[in-house]
Amino acid sequence: MEESTATTSKKAAKKAEAKRAAELAAATANVTLQDDAAAESYGARPAVFSHGAEEVDICSLNESHVDKTVIVRAWLQNSRVQSAKMGFLELRKGANWSIQGIVMASEEEPVVSRPMVKWVMGINPESFVAVEAKCYLVASAPSMLGMTLAVANKPIVNFSDDVPPAGNVVEAEKSTIPAASMLTHLDNIAMHKRSPVQQAIADIRIEVKKPFRSYLEERGFKEFEPPCLIGAASEGGGNVFRLPYFGEEAFLAQSPQFYKQFEIAGGRERVFSIGPVFRAEISNTARHMTEFTGLDLEMEVRESYTEVRDVLEGVLLHIFRGIQERCANEVATVRAVYPSEPFLLPEPGKEVRLTFAEAQKLLREEGPAEFANVRDDEDMSTPQEKALGEVVRSKYNTDFFVVDKFPETARPFYAKIDETAAPIGDGVSVTNAFDFFARNQEILSGGQRINDAVELEARIRAKGVDPESAGIKEYLAVFRSVGVPPHGGGGIGLDRVVAWYLGLPSVHLAAYYPRTPKRLSP
Amino acid sequence: MEESTATTSKKAAKKAEAKRAAELAAATANVTLQDDAAAESYGARPAVFSHGAEEVDICSLNESHVDKTVIVRAWLQNSRVQSAKMGFLELRKGANWSIQGIVMASEEEPVVSRPMVKWVMGINPESFVAVEAKCYLVASAPSMLGMTLAVANKPIVNFSDDVPPAGNVVEAEKSTIPAASMLTHLDNIAMHKRSPVQQAIADIRIEVKKPFRSYLEERGFKEFEPPCLIGAASEGGGNVFRLPYFGEEAFLAQSPQFYKQFEIAGGRERVFSIGPVFRAEISNTARHMTEFTGLDLEMEVRESYTEVRDVLEGVLLHIFRGIQERCANEVATVRAVYPSEPFLLPEPGKEVRLTFAEAQKLLREEGPAEFANVRDDEDMSTPQEKALGEVVRSKYNTDFFVVDKFPETARPFYAKIDETAAPIGDGVSVTNAFDFFARNQEILSGGQRINDAVELEARIRAKGVDPESAGIKEYLAVFRSVGVPPHGGGGIGLDRVVAWYLGLPSVHLAAYYPRTPKRLSP
Repeated sequence: MEESTATTSKKAAKKAEAKRAAELAAATANVTLQDDAAAESYGARPAVFSHGAEEVDICSLNESHVDKTVIVRAWLQNSRVQSAKMGFLELRKGANWSIQGIVMASEEEPVVSRPMVKWVMGINPESFVAVEAKCYLVASAPSMLGMTLAVANKPIVNFSDDVPPAGNVVEAEKSTIPAASMLTHLDNIAMHKRSPVQQAIADIRIEVKKPFRSYLEERGFKEFEPPCLIGAASEGGGNVFRLPYFGEEAFLAQSPQFYKQFEIAGGRERVFSIGPVFRAEISNTARHMTEFTGLDLEMEVRESYTEVRDVLEGVLLHIFRGIQERCANEVATVRAVYPSEPFLLPEPGKEVRLTFAEAQKLLREEGPAEFANVRDDEDMSTPQEKALGEVVRSKYNTDFFVVDKFPETARPFYAKIDETAAPIGDGVSVTNAFDFFARNQEILSGGQRINDAVELEARIRAKGVDPESAGIKEYLAVFRSVGVPPHGGGGIGLDRVVAWYLGLPSVHLAAYYPRTPKRLSP
Repeated sequence: MEESTATTSKKAAKKAEAKRAAELAAATANVTLQDDAAAESYGARPAVFSHGAEEVDICSLNESHVDKTVIVRAWLQNSRVQSAKMGFLELRKGANWSIQGIVMASEEEPVVSRPMVKWVMGINPESFVAVEAKCYLVASAPSMLGMTLAVANKPIVNFSDDVPPAGNVVEAEKSTIPAASMLTHLDNIAMHKRSPVQQAIADIRIEVKKPFRSYLEERGFKEFEPPCLIGAASEGGGNVFRLPYFGEEAFLAQSPQFYKQFEIAGGRERVFSIGPVFRAEISNTARHMTEFTGLDLEMEVRESYTEVRDVLEGVLLHIFRGIQERCANEVATVRAVYPSEPFLLPEPGKEVRLTFAEAQKLLREEGPAEFANVRDDEDMSTPQEKALGEVVRSKYNTDFFVVDKFPETARPFYAKIDETAAPIGDGVSVTNAFDFFARNQEILSGGQRINDAVELEARIRAKGVDPESAGIKEYLAVFRSVGVPPHGGGGIGLDRVVAWYLGLPSVHLAAYYPRTPKRLSP
């Protein structure tokens, strides 16, 4: 599939190039570069550019600029030769901003010569250009601003010399070829990033991260940086990267879990971290990466672990509502390429929170027949999660909900058991731990942690882990060394939040430089 | 040195423990735990705590709380038995907030029994306690607030059971023993972090990171996340961590340099990143770590590379002035333990920017005799940097300054050569690249980068690097694939900014979990 797409694309590229060359040759057949009255007005200047006219971002151009001369910096999206005296340019910057330019030979000041027209029309697509130009209002112009730039003089250019045919990325992404093909774009990272859809995804990603931070800071959370290099594969050795470390062995952190708890033990009441986490899973799926960005928080609990659940639910709702408010254009740009249903949010006060037992009951009673016998004391599988999401969506009209009170069998040793709750299933205790779901997929795990050293050691043993093993020993020592307040927290994968919210076909499209077992570059 | 300090500390601990036990035994000799009228009012409850009274942070207690009953959560810093009927507690939270508590037997409601007094006095230091208490204003009280809590009922506790003698960390840090001994505290990470000085350093660290981000965001910079796992040791293979990666080899990024440039090539005008970078240096000094937090930015240049220099200078001055304004208490807490001179900043408009040649001239003419022959075309050594900082401080009254226009011999291949400047020294070209200094040490490297593929390849070759080598090939390909605007940037080490600003004896004290060739834990 990839193979044939690549071949088609190459053929199209060659054809476009040939057509372009023919157009250029025909239009400029009689032009010579001798005796050029505008020779000082254009050329390739790879460095900086000093000038007199006002510099304006394309997105900021407005009617006040009409008939004025401005400097605009942009990428050349496309150009079209009209005659030896005239050509059209499409200039683009960012996701949603482009403008049309005209270059036309003129003997009046500022002089534009035919060689200059020829030179401008010869600029490769995706070159970076800075042009000095007069602004016209053109009612019929195809540009978004209804405005056209007349390129007057001094276009400076940093050439691209190895470029796919104009519009390649954008065109390809408007098709519905599968995500795997999209990802071959990553091999040309600059082009991939310049596509409007990737610019929009990057902007939305920022609008997840920023409000995560500001919402928490407003509530007294303090940011900290957990280490990536750690001395023990503390959370199970299976999927951990190992590396030689000055004669010893080091590991890459799979989560900041222990370090968040150390911060609480160390006297910080509420903390959060945003940083890379690593999983050495051989999962070549659209849901997995070997490095991703974790959004994590941990906080003291005062009266109930639901304080933690509510902060996490609050910050995610804040993020999702923020995207809908602030990123409508960007979401539309993404949907045009990767169609998806709008992301349904619960009305304020109508958040959906099921217990694990309620969720399993819902699945048994209203889910597909294959899940008619799911048990209350066994963890959900990915297909079960998907089915549950669909039942909840049709029943409660939301793509975002919480499943709380997981059985202890489905949680790690540090999950706090709820001693007051009745056991479920075959007599299994429930925990004060929960998962959050977005568009049928888990995006967050969290809950209350054990804060008492004796209780913690007992649970470590009950899970079959040796309390004296590397990493665990040091973890337990912290709880023995000081009294640790009751606390809880949760972790979110930034890439997944972006990908699932937008309904992207792959989480890799939400990352800046996705890392998979097969991809370490660029 | 460490050995003897540790021994002294152990002896002191044993002595303190024995004294404490004797006091407790004497004071409570006649108390039995039978027939306790206040039995329901206290005890160890490792979980959460539901209550009626208002919960108040120690730092928020004020005169409006006098004669009211409140809930306070804190660490037990210390306690002192007065009699079988009475004892004193010191409760602490954070860097600067502590309050004294009294527990006194009483038969009036709320009943406080002698067994309860005994129990409270038996709580280990550094236990986490939640107490319900009435607030008294005590003019002579030693607490910062002039206020005392009368512990009435329901102190709940998460015990610490393996605790150094009360006040150990704080006392030790008030001494002037060397930083190496300080770092042995890291083996008891929770105690280390609870010390007021580490709480203060952590708060100041936040006040470096936060304004870095907000200053840049206000100026149109967008955050992104560069990868840690990379496919090639792109910036010189010497000090790079290597790891097995699904049958291939991966490396840990030594800086986000190439990725910042890819963002610019990919159409982002101004970007910044905050994240971990890794150096596999066997440097067991107070200046080095194997993992640290990089603050990096990259931006399009319009008229001159000085735009980059000015943004970097602006953000650092903004950070330093912000610390002086917002963190006076925290800085005082740090200085009490690690004395340092105030950090001198230039007056606005009087920033000190020397060219490299000017700096070397200053060193030759006004520096120590050993530097009387330093050359304009050779990089500065660390001792030269220190000497230069001292000359600049006495001449210009600032601890913060810029050295610009480094010779190309002292910069990497991507540094942009200033074609308009006269060569220095033995005919060496100068670059549009600079270092920033704080308290005699380099804290930032930056400058304009080459944005033209042809020029870049020539410089790569000139530096003796193979343009076809792993990492370099992919880097060059980006500049060939699109036209890249002129751009520049710089990188700051967060840990060093904090450490040098505060004059800490070791950069390790500025990190949350310092990593050195000898330390991977906790």
